[in-house]
Amino acid sequence: MDQMTEPGEGTPRRRRGRRPVRSQDAGSPQVPFRQLRRHFEPTAVVSDDELEAIHRASLAVLSTVGIDVLAPEARALFAGAGASIDGDRVRLDPEMVTEVISTAPSEFTLHAPNPNKNVRIGGDNVVFGAVASAPFVSDSAEGRRNGNREDFRNLVKLSQHFNAIHMHGGYPVEPADLHPSVRHLHATHDILTLSDKAVNAYSLGRQRNRDCLEMVRIARQVTNEQLDDEPSIHTVINSSSPLRLDVPMSLGILEYSRRGQVIIMTPFTLAGAMAPVTIAGAVTQQNAEALAGVALTQLVRPGAPVVYGGFTSNVDMKSGSPAFGTPEFIKAAMLGGQLARRYGLPYRSSNVNASNAIDAQAGYESSFSLWGALMGGANIVFHGAGWLEGGLRASYEKLVLDADLLSMMQTFLEPLGVEVEDLALDAIGEVGPGGHFFGTQHTQDRYRNAFYQPMVSDWRNFESWQEAGSPSAHDKLPGLVREALDSYVPPQLPENVAAELADFVDRRVGEGGVATDF
Amino acid sequence: MDQMTEPGEGTPRRRRGRRPVRSQDAGSPQVPFRQLRRHFEPTAVVSDDELEAIHRASLAVLSTVGIDVLAPEARALFAGAGASIDGDRVRLDPEMVTEVISTAPSEFTLHAPNPNKNVRIGGDNVVFGAVASAPFVSDSAEGRRNGNREDFRNLVKLSQHFNAIHMHGGYPVEPADLHPSVRHLHATHDILTLSDKAVNAYSLGRQRNRDCLEMVRIARQVTNEQLDDEPSIHTVINSSSPLRLDVPMSLGILEYSRRGQVIIMTPFTLAGAMAPVTIAGAVTQQNAEALAGVALTQLVRPGAPVVYGGFTSNVDMKSGSPAFGTPEFIKAAMLGGQLARRYGLPYRSSNVNASNAIDAQAGYESSFSLWGALMGGANIVFHGAGWLEGGLRASYEKLVLDADLLSMMQTFLEPLGVEVEDLALDAIGEVGPGGHFFGTQHTQDRYRNAFYQPMVSDWRNFESWQEAGSPSAHDKLPGLVREALDSYVPPQLPENVAAELADFVDRRVGEGGVATDF
Repeated sequence: MDQMTEPGEGTPRRRRGRRPVRSQDAGSPQVPFRQLRRHFEPTAVVSDDELEAIHRASLAVLSTVGIDVLAPEARALFAGAGASIDGDRVRLDPEMVTEVISTAPSEFTLHAPNPNKNVRIGGDNVVFGAVASAPFVSDSAEGRRNGNREDFRNLVKLSQHFNAIHMHGGYPVEPADLHPSVRHLHATHDILTLSDKAVNAYSLGRQRNRDCLEMVRIARQVTNEQLDDEPSIHTVINSSSPLRLDVPMSLGILEYSRRGQVIIMTPFTLAGAMAPVTIAGAVTQQNAEALAGVALTQLVRPGAPVVYGGFTSNVDMKSGSPAFGTPEFIKAAMLGGQLARRYGLPYRSSNVNASNAIDAQAGYESSFSLWGALMGGANIVFHGAGWLEGGLRASYEKLVLDADLLSMMQTFLEPLGVEVEDLALDAIGEVGPGGHFFGTQHTQDRYRNAFYQPMVSDWRNFESWQEAGSPSAHDKLPGLVREALDSYVPPQLPENVAAELADFVDRRVGEGGVATDF
Repeated sequence: MDQMTEPGEGTPRRRRGRRPVRSQDAGSPQVPFRQLRRHFEPTAVVSDDELEAIHRASLAVLSTVGIDVLAPEARALFAGAGASIDGDRVRLDPEMVTEVISTAPSEFTLHAPNPNKNVRIGGDNVVFGAVASAPFVSDSAEGRRNGNREDFRNLVKLSQHFNAIHMHGGYPVEPADLHPSVRHLHATHDILTLSDKAVNAYSLGRQRNRDCLEMVRIARQVTNEQLDDEPSIHTVINSSSPLRLDVPMSLGILEYSRRGQVIIMTPFTLAGAMAPVTIAGAVTQQNAEALAGVALTQLVRPGAPVVYGGFTSNVDMKSGSPAFGTPEFIKAAMLGGQLARRYGLPYRSSNVNASNAIDAQAGYESSFSLWGALMGGANIVFHGAGWLEGGLRASYEKLVLDADLLSMMQTFLEPLGVEVEDLALDAIGEVGPGGHFFGTQHTQDRYRNAFYQPMVSDWRNFESWQEAGSPSAHDKLPGLVREALDSYVPPQLPENVAAELADFVDRRVGEGGVATDF
């Protein structure tokens, strides 16, 4: 059942040595790196009839309003499948959409550089990714600042260190001090040398896409043919809501789906701003945009892996700011899950909040969105650790706090043992009315690993806590960040792989990377 | 469907004027006072077979180990039903237990002094109660102190003020400056004059129980016969785990069930301390204790309303302190719900945390326990607002924060509208690719009430937030507490009722209340 402890089916042995799965690395005790499974039914927030109404409305949007697809090659694929084209506008027949998307797989393996860290996507599998794409970064020592490579590298290390984080969701923070012409080369090199978990690439034009594919191919030491058969990279495709697929995003689908890589098709449909003010309306639009993107992946290559991404939230109607972890966000997250399951697609949601501080708000908004994602049947939870300020900021401390929340979720997802010994009838009889269980053999045999040991929660009594200076959770986090960075262990990258990667980056940087106009 | 806006079935008109349901009282906008319904399936954390294993193990505990029942009258009732009695020890035949508990109702109405605030308990109904029984109290102005009547009264006012709080769960804080001989008289008088929501009484011996029943009868202006037919008071019965029902608790069941009032049978089974270290074992013991108590209610009066209470958590094995909001707590909460539904009983869980501060820990532990309760099918969530420090402390500020969380939950529980206008096809067509929805008629018609407006969450952008002094959620709370207390509106208690209540309290206080030995 735990496919992570065994080589994936059809995965040939690699030159790289496989690291054993350990229940804890250096530093604080951790949950083990483990593929998680949801062993209960996800929550349905609408009836089957209501779900069909949203499905039909989305198809009506695609056939009557249509969607602007800015890349001519993508429009040509739609045209070839019978879509009506009018300038950039593509209108899709409902039956065509339904038929085309039916070839998308409901479950697949995303291969990591370290095969022990492959992740299974879809079905009842659950995986967590770290924060991605924040322009700002902060820690308590130096405050909030622009994203840069040093922080980027540190956050990649933290994402590698914490076992509850299964994969990268993107650049945890934008390394803005790297010039855009070569940023993807250095950043991807950093990720592949500092970490061995499954990776993302941004869809930023053909050349960058090809560079990233080649670097992942080198890291995995596979042929191009094998890479094309084994999803090894994922890219998040955001439509420009409402109803537009721009050139880099269209090209991303063309390039990555052609190579059998994973598209995570995620409209960002903010109810009241770029989508209707009603949740049903915003999700109708989300669904139309998602289905168009999913259809394109299957027109490129039937069977190409694709994930249905939901990212509908609401604006604060006072300020126009996006809000996260709201009741509306959760309803939309659960509704998105129902739609993804209707289409037999893996589902992606997020752990998000709009707090400026690591305070109670950050705690409850993150928890609410995390529970919404999990109960809504998300297979991938992105921005799982480190997201603050509505995604504008990656926070070292929040990453550690969230790693604790994800570990709690992992523990919650572990099946509750109901074997004869778990029922503890003998211990109950032995203790009897009025006794206690501290000293029983049943307790002694199990207490060390019986309960989740949190990193952050302070369970001391008030007096001890007060004597210690009344620390809040926030006060404890900087020490935990340092401890995690200190105990970070780099992955064992064979020398030949490291050299080949470095050579590639040197060569491409020497060529000037990708032409930019600045 | 919203039974709160109509007089309850079989509820005769009262002399008291019915206050209209308003979407907001004075002060910040609020959700309306409304009976909530869970419109999705609760989460099952074990299979049906595993559930049966726990059920059978619990019955085995009751038949082999048995339970100590310290009140002779209670033992006599068990004996009359065929139980084997050995000193205090009562052993119950499995078939007998199953048969006896079958008369308990799965759903009933708890009558409040104001019939508009009656609450429906069981089925898919959900109601929230405020913090109860804390020995300490705190606010940010004066810090942590012993419970006292002034704080007690203020917390009752806050519980009355916030519409998301449906009922009282007990004394929010112990008014320790009132002598125990008369405390129940003054405290219950305070609750009945400062609030019109459904009330609790503590089970602290015959005389106190009778005094509380009489005061609630006066407040509702009903006859004793009508009171006996209309549950109007609830009392939480905690077994002394493991496997003991002490005299005041046994008498509470005898007194209140005889009068048709609501027993909330809640073992406090702390895994690793007063219960086995495994969650399955701790819940097996919880279930044994709960079933014994439920059986006693039905032996007293078949059909008496009773709620299955789950309160299994784990100790911190380092310090021995109880932990709350943990993965183990959530699994136990969901498992308790499965057992309650198996027996056709309403289910009670809690919103709890072990934090000493209103920080991220308080935010995530509370959110985790609240989600565990809700997804686990809890019909009553106690300690819903204000609980801190593992229940040792009632916090003004935490009460306001939690009122916000409960309001978010209420909004989440409101059905997602999927009518034709909600799907917004016209608006999507009108805006088209690349536009925005701010100005559309569809948005303009709905934006004021489209989304939940939080009290606490700060959604300003970083710059505005920093200019305002970088306030955390905690910093905002004292102002919200003052605002809520300032806008508190006392219930409209008719003069004759107020006089009758005052006379009763004066007389009973004059008689010395209840004899104590100190």
